Amino acid sequence: MTQLKNDRLIKAFLRQPVDRTPIWIMRQAGRYLPEYRAVREKAGDFMTLCSTPDLACEVTLQPLRRFDLDAAILFSDILTIPDAMGLGLYFSEGEGPKFERPLSSAADISKLGVIDPSQELKYVTDAVSLIRRELNGDVPLIGFSGSPWTLATYMVEGGSSKTFSKIKALLFEQPETAHQLMGVLADSVAVYLNAQIAAGAQTVMIFDSWGGALSHQHYQDFSLAYMRRIIDQLDRDHDGQTIPVIMFTKGGGLWLEDMAASGCDALGLDWTVDIGTARKRVGDKVGLQGNLDPAVMATSAATVEQEAKRILDSFGQGEGHVFNLGHGITPNIKPENVEALVNVVHDYSAQFHN
Amino acid sequence: MTQLKNDRLIKAFLRQPVDRTPIWIMRQAGRYLPEYRAVREKAGDFMTLCSTPDLACEVTLQPLRRFDLDAAILFSDILTIPDAMGLGLYFSEGEGPKFERPLSSAADISKLGVIDPSQELKYVTDAVSLIRRELNGDVPLIGFSGSPWTLATYMVEGGSSKTFSKIKALLFEQPETAHQLMGVLADSVAVYLNAQIAAGAQTVMIFDSWGGALSHQHYQDFSLAYMRRIIDQLDRDHDGQTIPVIMFTKGGGLWLEDMAASGCDALGLDWTVDIGTARKRVGDKVGLQGNLDPAVMATSAATVEQEAKRILDSFGQGEGHVFNLGHGITPNIKPENVEALVNVVHDYSAQFHN
Repeated sequence: MTQLKNDRLIKAFLRQPVDRTPIWIMRQAGRYLPEYRAVREKAGDFMTLCSTPDLACEVTLQPLRRFDLDAAILFSDILTIPDAMGLGLYFSEGEGPKFERPLSSAADISKLGVIDPSQELKYVTDAVSLIRRELNGDVPLIGFSGSPWTLATYMVEGGSSKTFSKIKALLFEQPETAHQLMGVLADSVAVYLNAQIAAGAQTVMIFDSWGGALSHQHYQDFSLAYMRRIIDQLDRDHDGQTIPVIMFTKGGGLWLEDMAASGCDALGLDWTVDIGTARKRVGDKVGLQGNLDPAVMATSAATVEQEAKRILDSFGQGEGHVFNLGHGITPNIKPENVEALVNVVHDYSAQFHN
Repeated sequence: MTQLKNDRLIKAFLRQPVDRTPIWIMRQAGRYLPEYRAVREKAGDFMTLCSTPDLACEVTLQPLRRFDLDAAILFSDILTIPDAMGLGLYFSEGEGPKFERPLSSAADISKLGVIDPSQELKYVTDAVSLIRRELNGDVPLIGFSGSPWTLATYMVEGGSSKTFSKIKALLFEQPETAHQLMGVLADSVAVYLNAQIAAGAQTVMIFDSWGGALSHQHYQDFSLAYMRRIIDQLDRDHDGQTIPVIMFTKGGGLWLEDMAASGCDALGLDWTVDIGTARKRVGDKVGLQGNLDPAVMATSAATVEQEAKRILDSFGQGEGHVFNLGHGITPNIKPENVEALVNVVHDYSAQFHN
């Protein structure tokens, strides 16, 4: 494998010196790009796009052709693991992801086993290998998975939820069954991320999209504990390279200290937290990724620049910052604003690095 | 006006000694009660129910006939002020509240004036007077309003939103116009709550349902600052009685210290914050209201009791706790579970008071 030409991302996650603050964008391969929409249309449905390595590779690379981004992120879905477990993932227009066979009993849960990513998820590792080859060392490739808690919400609710009443009833009423579910999911995520690392992912991120819906104690017991269990199993020194691990709990601003003590290398932050305050809270334990409000991207390039500068100023001098949005970019964004963002982050951040 | 027979709520908000931790439930008059659904059906639509004092009074009193609650809360909607401003509030099945004429320009905003509650919102103050008379001093009556930021989100987006892209674009791109909007809303909320107090509300609560969607700085500048502007104008010593003011920002756990310094008497907490930790953070500045996850109410009575005890234990010995859910009760709840909750809170909390 070729040496990385741009290793700012890896260094920043590990709090090592860089010349510019690196930037990538959650959901950077997405509907705001006309070339993405063209491939998406050709593929027919979203799962075909995810599960066809050539197409997943193509859309992964698209944003890198337009913008001076410091990383590629595997194009995939957070729900590939439950799909591999046989729940039947599908996407219904305007309603988000759904499962044909959600978990509806303790018996359903006891039947689940740890996935074998070389079988059910070979399309993902094939995509990783292909993307890594096509990147040719230009920038690092980020692999990812949903967190056990986040996967479990969809698996038990059958799709998106506002109140999470079914999965929360499981936590409250059958905690042992819930722990069994989180355990098999954590071990599956671990082998899945290790398979992505083996195939070429140079850093991995755990997306806990719904951790912020939990009470303090449930977050500790049912989300964070299982992300720790994943981290403990990851192949973090692969082929002589350190593989940084990023943990992102949306709405998790109250628990940054706990997350920072999990063994991960960096934390993703949503925009509700001031990044300078977050830096003071976590000290030199972890790097920080974030945290522009995605709503800024729908305004003018001048506002995008102003708000990006505000975040860079708040983080301040020194190492350990990877710029990103606080959540995924939305479809209603002009690509010019992404270009303005990437450029201002690189230009303005030089002063903060020696 | 008669003396209050049960003044636990008022005392707890003011951190004065009580014999039992008082309890009321956000949205306690609601769809989980068959007698509510019957009145709602008779009324035809939701706004008729809100705007007919006899009906609003009837549904306000219904939960008090069933449960040993320590307060009544005015049955109304958080969006009465924008409706009074002429935006045309309506409810479409399954989609939540909407406005016929949302604000779409700075010109629309500049035309808004502070409401006169004795005119456009007389139906609310009439309901307050009627409920207060019917309560006959049994328990105190809580008045309320949406916060300026929360009202503004609906007024600019035209209804509910996930991303708040229009109202946030206003904050980012036209902050002076946004401040103008928040100012006229804050002054309207202040006169509205004072009118409720004059009509008989014995404590008032400001619901900031969407403050948690803001960045740290925007929360300070566009939500909290205007809740402070309201609090500064409230008639907090009315007829020789202290009128406690409660501030509730859902998802505002990061900002409890700032809220506690706002001049309010008590803070509402959602369930993401551990109430014992919150108590340490705010010290003896304010009382705390909360904070059971509403999802618990959909489980068994035994689980409801266990989780209620956990919260009472976490708050611990002493004064300043009003028990509540962390957000509104949902329609899918068995009334027996509410009874179990009210009873366990009263029974179990006796040990924490001298």
